[in-house]
Amino acid sequence: MPGLIQSIERSSAVLRLLADGPGRLRVKQIADALDLPKSTAQSILRTLTHIGFAEQDPRTARYRLGRALLDLSSTGLDANELRAHTLNWADALASRSGEEVYVGALRAGPAGQGPELLVVHHVFRPDDSAQSMNTGRVLPAHATALGQVLLAYRVAAAEDVLAAGLMAYTRGTVTTRQALTRTLAATRAQGWALSVEEWQAGRAGIAAPVRTFGGLVVGAIGISGPVERLCDTRRQARPALVEHVVAAGRAISRDLSGPQP
Amino acid sequence: MPGLIQSIERSSAVLRLLADGPGRLRVKQIADALDLPKSTAQSILRTLTHIGFAEQDPRTARYRLGRALLDLSSTGLDANELRAHTLNWADALASRSGEEVYVGALRAGPAGQGPELLVVHHVFRPDDSAQSMNTGRVLPAHATALGQVLLAYRVAAAEDVLAAGLMAYTRGTVTTRQALTRTLAATRAQGWALSVEEWQAGRAGIAAPVRTFGGLVVGAIGISGPVERLCDTRRQARPALVEHVVAAGRAISRDLSGPQP
Repeated sequence: MPGLIQSIERSSAVLRLLADGPGRLRVKQIADALDLPKSTAQSILRTLTHIGFAEQDPRTARYRLGRALLDLSSTGLDANELRAHTLNWADALASRSGEEVYVGALRAGPAGQGPELLVVHHVFRPDDSAQSMNTGRVLPAHATALGQVLLAYRVAAAEDVLAAGLMAYTRGTVTTRQALTRTLAATRAQGWALSVEEWQAGRAGIAAPVRTFGGLVVGAIGISGPVERLCDTRRQARPALVEHVVAAGRAISRDLSGPQP
Repeated sequence: MPGLIQSIERSSAVLRLLADGPGRLRVKQIADALDLPKSTAQSILRTLTHIGFAEQDPRTARYRLGRALLDLSSTGLDANELRAHTLNWADALASRSGEEVYVGALRAGPAGQGPELLVVHHVFRPDDSAQSMNTGRVLPAHATALGQVLLAYRVAAAEDVLAAGLMAYTRGTVTTRQALTRTLAATRAQGWALSVEEWQAGRAGIAAPVRTFGGLVVGAIGISGPVERLCDTRRQARPALVEHVVAAGRAISRDLSGPQP
């Protein structure tokens, strides 16, 4: 059938075979069963393992279904893993930008409320000023650049946030469906978000997405600081800072899409 | 990472997005979230729908996860569907070969026993002889050509059959692990199975696999008849008959791999 993607069809056939006989199939058996060259079966199994849909028993080298299939709604990456992959890049971003760096991910909020932004990593501004550690803090997703990036690429989360209602934190907070939808569309169009005095007066944030394999957005990295340092006089983000943030997001995404530990 | 298949990675990202927001995502939203061209997202979604991993709400055109993900161990094709797809080809095979035609699929056997062969369709030999309808009958998989084809390509089922023990029906029935393993390997190597007096004295069967998308074997089609009509004097399958059976299997496979109703 034209328009169908053969490798996806084959991967589903592999998964069905694995479901048939958990933990028992060798590459050769899968190749034989589907009439595929062994190298093709190997590539499919390697990819399925990489994305968590299959697992290889290190002792027997046989394959079984992976745990990610049981919990598709998780991103397959917990906050600690995201943090581990971002540590070096976050430090580098802080040096380059001279600003505080935040890494965030969405997590389910309390019942009846939409998803929240969890700060999974925070790097101090590289000067000697007194600062307090914000790792572990939970922030409103709609009112921060980090959160807006995440909502821009996780449509269902954005709908949940909208359904729960948008609380105002400053006069600049986006509080209507129309305004948030426009903000998220602009974020997708440019590939990064700028938030100016939407969460705290006098402060701005610039953030970019962190993607894992297949392009799935699993986190956001950004900088936060006084409006006058992050923005020009027309309250537009300073291009050099945007470039640093976006480059950091891309670097982590490359890292995350590569071989997992 | 070299060796990984991008479209499979992307399809897993799409599934995770769908898991995030069941029944709520349009093609454009998925394309935007993963930073893919809309046509690419469309191909992935069409393929995922085809294999049952995604479903489109006909009313809203939005996608949600498909039911096949919940039951990966099913082949995604029940006996009635298999039968519906084989009707015409089975009739044609009966005319061409002049023999009875059977279509079979594996189904779980009673507790403690291995999978059994279920006859999902039976076409009489095209002459005026008295015959009895065998659709719905359950036969031992290891002792029939249809069953051997299915076991050859469903490794886990073969292991279950072996674990349950191989009952002898004639002196020719394959009853040892070694012999069945050899028979199944030969079946895979040639792409079809011949069984001579393994189930009933005086009778032989020739069968070939029926595959659905991705190459997954979901059924077998074959002919059954007196040994002297199906085999030459050295008890080898007559090549013209093998060709008819294999061609019927291929035709049904093409049909099954196409658009589903």
